[in-house]
Amino acid sequence: MEQTIIDKLYEIVSKNRIFTSKADLYAYGFDASIHHAMPSIVVKPKSSKEVEEIVKLANEYSVPIVARGAGTALCGQAVPIYGGILLDMTGMNKIKEIRIEDLYCIVEPGVIYAKLNERLAEHGFFFPPTPGSGDVCTIGGMIAVNASGMRAIKYGATRDYVLGMEIVFPYGKVRFGSRTLKNSSGYQIERLIVGSEGTLGIITEATLRISPLPEKRAVALASFNDVVKAGEGVAAIIAGGMLPSALEIMDKVCIEAVKKAMDIDLPDAEALLLIEVDGKAMEVKEGIKKIAKILEEKADKIEFTDDEERMAELWKGRKGVLPSLSRYGEDMVSVSLADDMSVPISKIPYAIKEFQNIARKYGIIVGTYGHAGDGNLHTKVLINPNDEKNWKKAEQAVDEIYKVVYELGGIASGEHGIGITKAPWINGDIATMEKIKKAIDPKNIMNPGKMMQWKKGIIAYLRYK
Amino acid sequence: MEQTIIDKLYEIVSKNRIFTSKADLYAYGFDASIHHAMPSIVVKPKSSKEVEEIVKLANEYSVPIVARGAGTALCGQAVPIYGGILLDMTGMNKIKEIRIEDLYCIVEPGVIYAKLNERLAEHGFFFPPTPGSGDVCTIGGMIAVNASGMRAIKYGATRDYVLGMEIVFPYGKVRFGSRTLKNSSGYQIERLIVGSEGTLGIITEATLRISPLPEKRAVALASFNDVVKAGEGVAAIIAGGMLPSALEIMDKVCIEAVKKAMDIDLPDAEALLLIEVDGKAMEVKEGIKKIAKILEEKADKIEFTDDEERMAELWKGRKGVLPSLSRYGEDMVSVSLADDMSVPISKIPYAIKEFQNIARKYGIIVGTYGHAGDGNLHTKVLINPNDEKNWKKAEQAVDEIYKVVYELGGIASGEHGIGITKAPWINGDIATMEKIKKAIDPKNIMNPGKMMQWKKGIIAYLRYK
Repeated sequence: MEQTIIDKLYEIVSKNRIFTSKADLYAYGFDASIHHAMPSIVVKPKSSKEVEEIVKLANEYSVPIVARGAGTALCGQAVPIYGGILLDMTGMNKIKEIRIEDLYCIVEPGVIYAKLNERLAEHGFFFPPTPGSGDVCTIGGMIAVNASGMRAIKYGATRDYVLGMEIVFPYGKVRFGSRTLKNSSGYQIERLIVGSEGTLGIITEATLRISPLPEKRAVALASFNDVVKAGEGVAAIIAGGMLPSALEIMDKVCIEAVKKAMDIDLPDAEALLLIEVDGKAMEVKEGIKKIAKILEEKADKIEFTDDEERMAELWKGRKGVLPSLSRYGEDMVSVSLADDMSVPISKIPYAIKEFQNIARKYGIIVGTYGHAGDGNLHTKVLINPNDEKNWKKAEQAVDEIYKVVYELGGIASGEHGIGITKAPWINGDIATMEKIKKAIDPKNIMNPGKMMQWKKGIIAYLRYK
Repeated sequence: MEQTIIDKLYEIVSKNRIFTSKADLYAYGFDASIHHAMPSIVVKPKSSKEVEEIVKLANEYSVPIVARGAGTALCGQAVPIYGGILLDMTGMNKIKEIRIEDLYCIVEPGVIYAKLNERLAEHGFFFPPTPGSGDVCTIGGMIAVNASGMRAIKYGATRDYVLGMEIVFPYGKVRFGSRTLKNSSGYQIERLIVGSEGTLGIITEATLRISPLPEKRAVALASFNDVVKAGEGVAAIIAGGMLPSALEIMDKVCIEAVKKAMDIDLPDAEALLLIEVDGKAMEVKEGIKKIAKILEEKADKIEFTDDEERMAELWKGRKGVLPSLSRYGEDMVSVSLADDMSVPISKIPYAIKEFQNIARKYGIIVGTYGHAGDGNLHTKVLINPNDEKNWKKAEQAVDEIYKVVYELGGIASGEHGIGITKAPWINGDIATMEKIKKAIDPKNIMNPGKMMQWKKGIIAYLRYK
């Protein structure tokens, strides 16, 4: 990077918030994906004014600029594959306003999800999307990938909660959206920004809708001797007019992985459904009763609980699937190549069966779990990443997995985004995406090379190589 | 319009679906707004293939093209102010698929809202946005303006239910979005299209999320001797963690208008709140009890009912406000100049008070009612439209009303859109809107002159002149 640009960055941001050592640049080159690439410089802005000036500079000199929250992205969204400026947004972490009676809050992008919900809980409210990395991930990152998680079936995804935004585009800082719950006043650009993975602009503030916390929650854990039966259970719950607050599925590989790695009491089964109902106490009671009746003949065993400790244990087990999979076998890690495709809800059992067939065909291990209630499956391929042959097999298997997903009317990502990892399989309307990208970022400085811009060869940035 | 274009249209669409007589063109020049302008030709396509060919033709010859559903738009969205081709989309009215277990349906844009909900009700499901014109309006029109209505506080607006779309842009037909409940696979262009009022492309198919119908509904009608107290009631309900399925307000002018025009039993009051709770039977019972407690000291009188007949009567009264206002006095009509601004929920009582002050100052009558639960106010100015002086006063008053709304952090439209009527007061990020518009529609053929493209002088198309 030209010295002029570096000098000018030091004029904008105080030097203790600029990182240039090799060690720092190396560390900042990772996110939670399989990719790695070093930025030319890391800058930690404190205000939207600083971001504005940095972006202006980057645009003037055509330097790539990548925003990063907590680095929990699973598909390489925060990896600066063309170098340039990496913006560490965690310094902008103020909760600016909480307006309970107006049902919104205003936050900076570096606010941690769990911290926001702690603050909202004091008023009996919450920001409902529930990403698995919620204890550490930032709101800015959640907006960038349209994060959601376990409660999307009832509460929707981040996109459904973003009312307004301040964003810095290459041509300047703009505000759009509102502090009102609905809006028909011109193009709703904030909804386009959600899920755009930093390829259009840098979010510097967000206005988020909030919701009242449910009075009570209860959980049912149902075991099945066949994944198809579990899938039928999901379909029956939904067609029965229920909207549980979570409806999770785990296949045998995932159940075993958790049992091996964690001290959690789970039944042996081909598939588990973990179902949560929330609301008023009476409503929860009725809901659990209804679920019992629906699953009665399909499940082998159903456990019901509203005991806080047991519920916490079960959720710990569910959340532990991802790390546990990497301890399934020696020299094995879980790679997010297929990761979080979504299919129409009723296609889940068929999809899982097919994934298992594909895994058998290539002699690899594939574990599938996820948000059955909204058709969002986490499909993890377990391989020895240092074995070239293993990678080849995994890539072929994943190609077939995507084919199945698309045949079922599914999509590449339900909540983690496209980034680099899933870019080869993106199935959006590329032409229109490129028109919009070019209109807003003509010099292509905003997180270049991601999503629809991915080109063969970029996968060479694998961290394991 | 050039004869060549007309000849080519006859090649695309059979002649009984092309209208060129002066009477037809005149009739098609109206929507439910105060504007009127005649198209050059009206074409009623039957398929997305026909739409594709018509748009291609229009783009080739740079002819304006405006889509129209049932013509219920209140702000002139369907009025072809630069002539050209008017597409009557009501011929594309097939419900293509209803997938209860996958929580979606696929419809053509000309499907009438009420018809879709009749079909969904057979399965115990519904498409929740509830526009006032729901008995006649089309899904395509709802998407174009992001329609919502009374139940948005709990269920959200049309935007929150659009999962996928087929759309014809000037450069061709594309599909985006999904048949899954959430999606992080590239730019979510379908959310940008919702509310774009036909200025980007012509919707030819939509995939909509559906929800289970509530088991039961009950209603509370609370009267207040002061609009501020009614507003405090709204804030208290929301801060109390309730999400009623509707939370409507009517001021004195609206109450009187309904009582004059309709045979409906409403109390005399300065303001009324009409509150609906839905859900499981027990939940509704508890909800109504909680509302009674919250409003106890603020309201003069509260009526509770779950009697279907009385509830229908009350909703009839609420829905009758708009037509009733036009019968408030002789030679008076209600004009939608201010129409449906939104403010943060807690600002409602202050806003209504200010609107009343402004009305007094200009010696005109302003009635305000609307969706208090989401801050969306319908502010109708009652004037004799043939009196030039009256128009002047109304316009000045409306200017002041918008000023108040913006000072309170509000927006120009919560659900009706911008069109022509509200274009002078649009407060979105115009620069970015224009970049996107130009990227997708470089020849500016798609509903030109609306929203951010409005220029002074266009208001001369008033139907009353």
